[in-house]
Amino acid sequence: MRKEWLACLGLYTQLSYGAEGMWTFNNLPLDRIKSEYNVTLDPAWVRKVMLSSARIEGTCSASFVSKDGLVMTNHHCASECIEQLSTAQKNYLTDGFLARRRSEELVCPDIALTRLEEITDVTARMQQATAGLDGPAYKKAENAARAELASACIGERKDKVHCEVINLYQGGMYQLYRYHRYPDVRLVWAPEKSVAFFGGDPDNFQFPRYNLDVTMLRAYEDGKPAKLDNYFTFSKDALAENDPVFVPGMPARTRRQMSVAQVAAERDVYLMSELLRTARLAGIIQQYGSTSAEAARTSETLLFDLENAYKQMHGELETLMDPAFLARKQKEEDALRAFVAADPALRDKVGGAWDAIAAAQQTYREIGKRYWLLERATAFNGLYFRFARFLVRGADERVKPNTERLAQYSTGRIADIEREIHSTGPVYAELEQVRMIASLTRMRDMLGTDDPLVRRVLGSKSPEQLVADMVARTKMGDASVRAALWKGGQEAVAASDDPFIQLARSVDLESRQLRARYEREVEAVTQKNNELIAHARFAHQGTKVYPDGTFSLRLSYGQVKGWNADGMEQKPFTDFAGIFARHTGAAPFALPASWLTSRDGLPLTQPFNFVTTNDIVGGNSGSPVINRRGEIVGLAFDANIHAIGSGYWYDERNNRAIAVDGGAILTALKSVYHADALLKELGR
Amino acid sequence: MRKEWLACLGLYTQLSYGAEGMWTFNNLPLDRIKSEYNVTLDPAWVRKVMLSSARIEGTCSASFVSKDGLVMTNHHCASECIEQLSTAQKNYLTDGFLARRRSEELVCPDIALTRLEEITDVTARMQQATAGLDGPAYKKAENAARAELASACIGERKDKVHCEVINLYQGGMYQLYRYHRYPDVRLVWAPEKSVAFFGGDPDNFQFPRYNLDVTMLRAYEDGKPAKLDNYFTFSKDALAENDPVFVPGMPARTRRQMSVAQVAAERDVYLMSELLRTARLAGIIQQYGSTSAEAARTSETLLFDLENAYKQMHGELETLMDPAFLARKQKEEDALRAFVAADPALRDKVGGAWDAIAAAQQTYREIGKRYWLLERATAFNGLYFRFARFLVRGADERVKPNTERLAQYSTGRIADIEREIHSTGPVYAELEQVRMIASLTRMRDMLGTDDPLVRRVLGSKSPEQLVADMVARTKMGDASVRAALWKGGQEAVAASDDPFIQLARSVDLESRQLRARYEREVEAVTQKNNELIAHARFAHQGTKVYPDGTFSLRLSYGQVKGWNADGMEQKPFTDFAGIFARHTGAAPFALPASWLTSRDGLPLTQPFNFVTTNDIVGGNSGSPVINRRGEIVGLAFDANIHAIGSGYWYDERNNRAIAVDGGAILTALKSVYHADALLKELGR
Repeated sequence: MRKEWLACLGLYTQLSYGAEGMWTFNNLPLDRIKSEYNVTLDPAWVRKVMLSSARIEGTCSASFVSKDGLVMTNHHCASECIEQLSTAQKNYLTDGFLARRRSEELVCPDIALTRLEEITDVTARMQQATAGLDGPAYKKAENAARAELASACIGERKDKVHCEVINLYQGGMYQLYRYHRYPDVRLVWAPEKSVAFFGGDPDNFQFPRYNLDVTMLRAYEDGKPAKLDNYFTFSKDALAENDPVFVPGMPARTRRQMSVAQVAAERDVYLMSELLRTARLAGIIQQYGSTSAEAARTSETLLFDLENAYKQMHGELETLMDPAFLARKQKEEDALRAFVAADPALRDKVGGAWDAIAAAQQTYREIGKRYWLLERATAFNGLYFRFARFLVRGADERVKPNTERLAQYSTGRIADIEREIHSTGPVYAELEQVRMIASLTRMRDMLGTDDPLVRRVLGSKSPEQLVADMVARTKMGDASVRAALWKGGQEAVAASDDPFIQLARSVDLESRQLRARYEREVEAVTQKNNELIAHARFAHQGTKVYPDGTFSLRLSYGQVKGWNADGMEQKPFTDFAGIFARHTGAAPFALPASWLTSRDGLPLTQPFNFVTTNDIVGGNSGSPVINRRGEIVGLAFDANIHAIGSGYWYDERNNRAIAVDGGAILTALKSVYHADALLKELGR
Repeated sequence: MRKEWLACLGLYTQLSYGAEGMWTFNNLPLDRIKSEYNVTLDPAWVRKVMLSSARIEGTCSASFVSKDGLVMTNHHCASECIEQLSTAQKNYLTDGFLARRRSEELVCPDIALTRLEEITDVTARMQQATAGLDGPAYKKAENAARAELASACIGERKDKVHCEVINLYQGGMYQLYRYHRYPDVRLVWAPEKSVAFFGGDPDNFQFPRYNLDVTMLRAYEDGKPAKLDNYFTFSKDALAENDPVFVPGMPARTRRQMSVAQVAAERDVYLMSELLRTARLAGIIQQYGSTSAEAARTSETLLFDLENAYKQMHGELETLMDPAFLARKQKEEDALRAFVAADPALRDKVGGAWDAIAAAQQTYREIGKRYWLLERATAFNGLYFRFARFLVRGADERVKPNTERLAQYSTGRIADIEREIHSTGPVYAELEQVRMIASLTRMRDMLGTDDPLVRRVLGSKSPEQLVADMVARTKMGDASVRAALWKGGQEAVAASDDPFIQLARSVDLESRQLRARYEREVEAVTQKNNELIAHARFAHQGTKVYPDGTFSLRLSYGQVKGWNADGMEQKPFTDFAGIFARHTGAAPFALPASWLTSRDGLPLTQPFNFVTTNDIVGGNSGSPVINRRGEIVGLAFDANIHAIGSGYWYDERNNRAIAVDGGAILTALKSVYHADALLKELGR
């Protein structure tokens, strides 16, 4: 049934191999799961898993683990909140956090959760809206239809419902995802970062691994713990090698279907440039953090994010420069083009698509530098400008009809911005100053001193002088000032003498023009022609297909399994004994006191971390790993170094997901943290 | 005559276009210079220019400008010395320096000069030494022959003579260059860095430009100013657009003859990795320098070097990722391979060369990461390790016969190392600490925590802990300690408990093994096969050829000329008025007080900087720009942004050298610095 339906919608993407694939919940490869792992997933299983899974807006995956709204995710997915709740006096990143009773649970200023509740196909509606259109008209009609559908779906329940139209299979299918929204999320338990992120940056993306990368949150509704009918429980059975496992979660954007020209432009315009920017900024923040304990504390999460992004992008760049990868990609593309060329009807329709994409990518190469600096705001790094742009654009966009707004400001999505505007999370002026100086200096380097934009922004000042003055005068760090400007709209924003508001206003015209050109000449052209290629690929390869990741709920299947590399066999499990063996006392290999004093009471053979063949990518962090009965056996938090280019391809031979063992979490809660109430809530 | 001689030696490299080429002094394209610029260079002109030109060992070009050993070079070529002579109390980078009498001239601790005096062809001797050999035997025999020739050339006059065997045309020709050596060089005049490097990093590689990037040094012999028969004088005529000009100087290694496989490996193994390393280290040093005035002062030159290298490598990487460049390169290679394939004799001899190089480059891809970390010491950044390795290897190498030593330690070259060992230049412990932490952290990231080398180096410590301890205990910053260890040789080194000596010893075996493998499997194979390709290229393209740059004396010809880019015409001259217009008061656009107070007395129409079509690259900095009469009309200090990939190709349409106008130097000496004695010495 499902396959026929895919076929008539003209779906098509890629053949998958082994455990490859991030499958939508309405197109799971049930036959393959049955034949390969002898597991039958019935509709009730699927629905329950869908309703027990959650998304942390903008960043991660999560799961509900009790009827009272308890949520499990990774420590690194909640670390920004943990840092925000810390002070110079009480550092929860260092010391961990445990609310012994509900009244001690602390509101995470910037976390909102969503849970997928319904999927509706809207392909016909979207295709109708854009039929016969091209370029800007195409893009505009698509945006308007998206905004209209999302807005109608949300209705009046803006605080509790989130809807979005998702483009699957390169535009071959559009679906409307309706989520329940939980904007009030509180911190319940976090272990010390030294054990959550044991091994730190050096061990990131590596295995063997020993991380207790877990944090518990709680969703609240109307000031009370949310009441849930669907949630995961922990398995009572130990996991074993080769066991089949499933990972529901939110794989972020993958790029496995990109054409060769698109991959090359992505590498040269985006990846190279962002990697170099990240390398330098990481150096600056690393050195800044070494100047004092307070500087280290306030910059820790930012540095983690930078290091993590650096490793990720570096691995991707290596993939994209790997002659073997490029040759494989080219060969696939050549084969598909030959297939198209051999069929006159297909050739007429699709034959020009690759060249059209290549031409669009050439435009991207020309405008990419300015587009990233201005519209992606890499020239204005930090929270002050981020807030200021939200305020400036929010004022200008909200007076427009919903269907004409920039997508981020449409009714369906504006809640995320409003949450940030009203966030009470601390903003550290000194850190902001360092970030802003670094990014303005880079802008001047990239555009040159005589560029009109550089002249307008800097005037006769150096970045250091300008930023020192701006940071001294801005009120963007004050949530109440931001809230007033948000409420005050265009008039209040126009009257503001805040230097970041003024900066955001002064660059807005050029920035919007760049965005418009990018959307018109790069994005719309590429998207439209990718749809055509997707048609051809379907005709060529058949129906066993999954769409690229879109940070929406997917299921991955696989099994617990080590790998071989360079003739060395890697076993799939580590244990508690291993972390004590690896403890040197020097960060990032220093266990916290809680672990050292609990050592004697801990079962040292307890499995700690394990690897599986599941095809997961960024965005999947925080996903539960579940067994055939839908019970939690682990918590995904990373992938191994071989999987780092998995946004572009998956290789079952050595790509592995890394997870914390479910038993390790329960054992630590019991024997290290003595979190009896929490264990009871988890049914133990 | 010259051409026939080239032909019988089997020389061969590339056709050149327009002003392209860095020509050896015994193979100048005199006919072309005559036909294109109507300038006849007679043998006396050539010899005088050769003897008036100088090299700053390891870094830059320079020229003699008086009979008393006065030397002109760039400020940025001498800035390390200027920084070394400065203290927290007296900062010559900030304030400039002028010795009003010779007794005030200050010894530059790390500068030695050489002047080329004789070129002898040794191709037959070298080819004989390596005939029939392969792999390690080839490399060993080549090194031994080099060391023997250089040693015989130097004889007993080690302090005053320097000799080196230069490999030209990818091994098609070997020549022995004999230099007079000036190890005692003193600082005479340096303007303030704010005008020498006006516009700073943002304007680096840009034009229009306004830099007084000049410094005067003096060569001493036996404690007295060196007496010279040959030196340049300043032209009395103003330079005009289209005037033919010549640049004698030392272009560093260029890579215009590399095969496609070699270029790709260079990009992926060396350039990408070094660029990322430099980006991060620059960020760290930039942020470190922002913490105090003293940190800024002590890190200024290092930061300049990092920023400069970053821009250079970034430009090169862009060239090497440019589809147009790669396509051109591939086309040239395909054409040459087709030419070879069509000739049975050539095919038998050369046909396999490209694949052999590609295989060697594959080995480079495999070992490159460790090779760079260890043998190129990017894992151990800073002076402490540099000194320690010199001491450890110096002890082990000096007990070997000259012909069996590592090349750097052979009689012909060891003087450079001895100069560094005995240098009295300051070493800043805090800066060393920052550099060493950064590089060890990077090593751990790149190799992984469990790598045996990482474990051996770090033990159970973090890089911060280890380095703090090492820096507290090391005496490598003390020249007298280094001198004693150098003198004490193997026994003293083995007995040393200096942590950097111990580190250098502990990694030396693996490091030497990597070097040996690199030389054997990558370098020797590539070199040998490049020779074969060079033969084929000569047969294909004919005789009008120049060899890739080798940091040895070359002459470039060209003319004063602007360029067109993006439909905008760039005039070739800037003037004094321009720098005052560009002065904002904020660094790096802040003129020093000397210029501001002299403004009224300055001729504002005086040409300041200018551009020419000369094909110069790194290493040419500090080269004089001379006219047809061999008189100084300018001082080369930079190239424009279009020329940044010129290590790989030259494009006369928009590649330009940038120079300080000779008249600007004299005018500044007169009206800003009132350096009357110096002007008199220059004949004004």
